[in-house]
Formats: sequence, structure tokens, C-alpha cells
Amino acid sequence: MSEKNFIYSILYDYYGDLLKENQATIIEMYYNLDYSLSEIAEEMNISRQGVHDALKRAEKNLIAYEQKIKLHDKYMKYSRAAENIIKLSSEIDDEKYKDLIEKIRLEAAKIINEG
Amino acid sequence: MSEKNFIYSILYDYYGDLLKENQATIIEMYYNLDYSLSEIAEEMNISRQGVHDALKRAEKNLIAYEQKIKLHDKYMKYSRAAENIIKLSSEIDDEKYKDLIEKIRLEAAKIINEG
Repeated sequence: MSEKNFIYSILYDYYGDLLKENQATIIEMYYNLDYSLSEIAEEMNISRQGVHDALKRAEKNLIAYEQKIKLHDKYMKYSRAAENIIKLSSEIDDEKYKDLIEKIRLEAAKIINEG
Repeated sequence: MSEKNFIYSILYDYYGDLLKENQATIIEMYYNLDYSLSEIAEEMNISRQGVHDALKRAEKNLIAYEQKIKLHDKYMKYSRAAENIIKLSSEIDDEKYKDLIEKIRLEAAKIINEG
């Protein structure tokens, strides 16, 4: 198996609730809990090939959801804009506007942290 | 039929690509093009009751997607934060920072307009 691609961990955060239960469990164990395919197979009492196939189907479904809904893509755009706001506001280095700038940065941080 | 609830039009923007084709068509015609159930029935060559049932299923699916993915909910939070940033930045009424404030407002507007 090639190296783990953690984009699936991110997409699982967004779309995990749309997956079938066994696919969600496998993604969770493989990407979030760092189990190997063999360990998952043992734990779930199915073949290693069965785990591999379900994992591939789950990954394909997560990619398809992102292509249709684009939540990760949207979040990256929101988050980039919010980071720009933080950077721009830090250039207003003026005691008079300190509180306002702090409030602006807090609002921008909400956007970044919301995910 | 009770009054049209345009939340479905918004949810359709987000999740329309996840619906089956006939459900997507019916939501599109009913909410975005303002067809009546009878007009849709005639256009699609199915019974009015068939349109009604498919519409109810489509609405239920859209609500279920929002409950699982919460894209509209997230967008409302992002958008509220971005509006607060615009409001806060307008309180910095200072020629010296005019360009910076304009840039901050543009970034916030990107968030609101991204949807």
C-alpha cells in the first residue's frame, strides 16, 4: 500500500456522515487511528483484501462528495481570506485602533477555526 | 400545498448534485423556476401526486444532507463573522489606513460572496 494520503482524513471530517457505517469505520481506523490494513482486518473479522476494497470505495466516495459539494475547497478559500484579513489588520499598528483590530482578528480566527 | 419554503432553494444550491436527477429537476422547477406541481406534472409527463411525492422526498433528502454536512450552517457563521469584520473596519475612519481597510473589506466580501 502506498503512503497514507491525509486528504482523506480531512474529507472524512466533512463527509464521514454520508458514508456507509463499515466504510466510515475503516477510514476512521486507517487514517485517524493509524491502524494497518491487517490490523483492521483482524479487528473487523474480515479479509485484508476486503478491508482494502472497502477503503478504496470509501476514498472514491469521499472524493466524489468533494467534487459535488466542494466544502473543503470553499473552506480553503474562506480560510485564505481570513488569514489575509489577519495579516492586513496587523499592519494597522496604532494604539487608537487596538481594540477594533483585536475584534477584527477574533472574527477572522472564528472563520479559520470553524473548519 | 403550503407556501413555498425557500430554504430548499438554498439547500439545493449546496447539495443539488447529490440528488437523483428527477428529484433535482423537480426542486429546480418548483423552487427556482416557480412552476406549480401541475405544471411540473404536465412537463414531466407524470401524475401530480407523483411530483408531490418526489418533491417531498427531495426536500427530506436536502434536510438530511444539511444535518450531516452542515454547509449552510457553516456558511451562515462565516458570513456573520465577515459582516462583523466589515462593520468593525468601517469604524477605522482614518485616511492613513484607507487602503488597508479597503483590502480588508474586499477579503471579507469574498467570504460573503463565495456562498
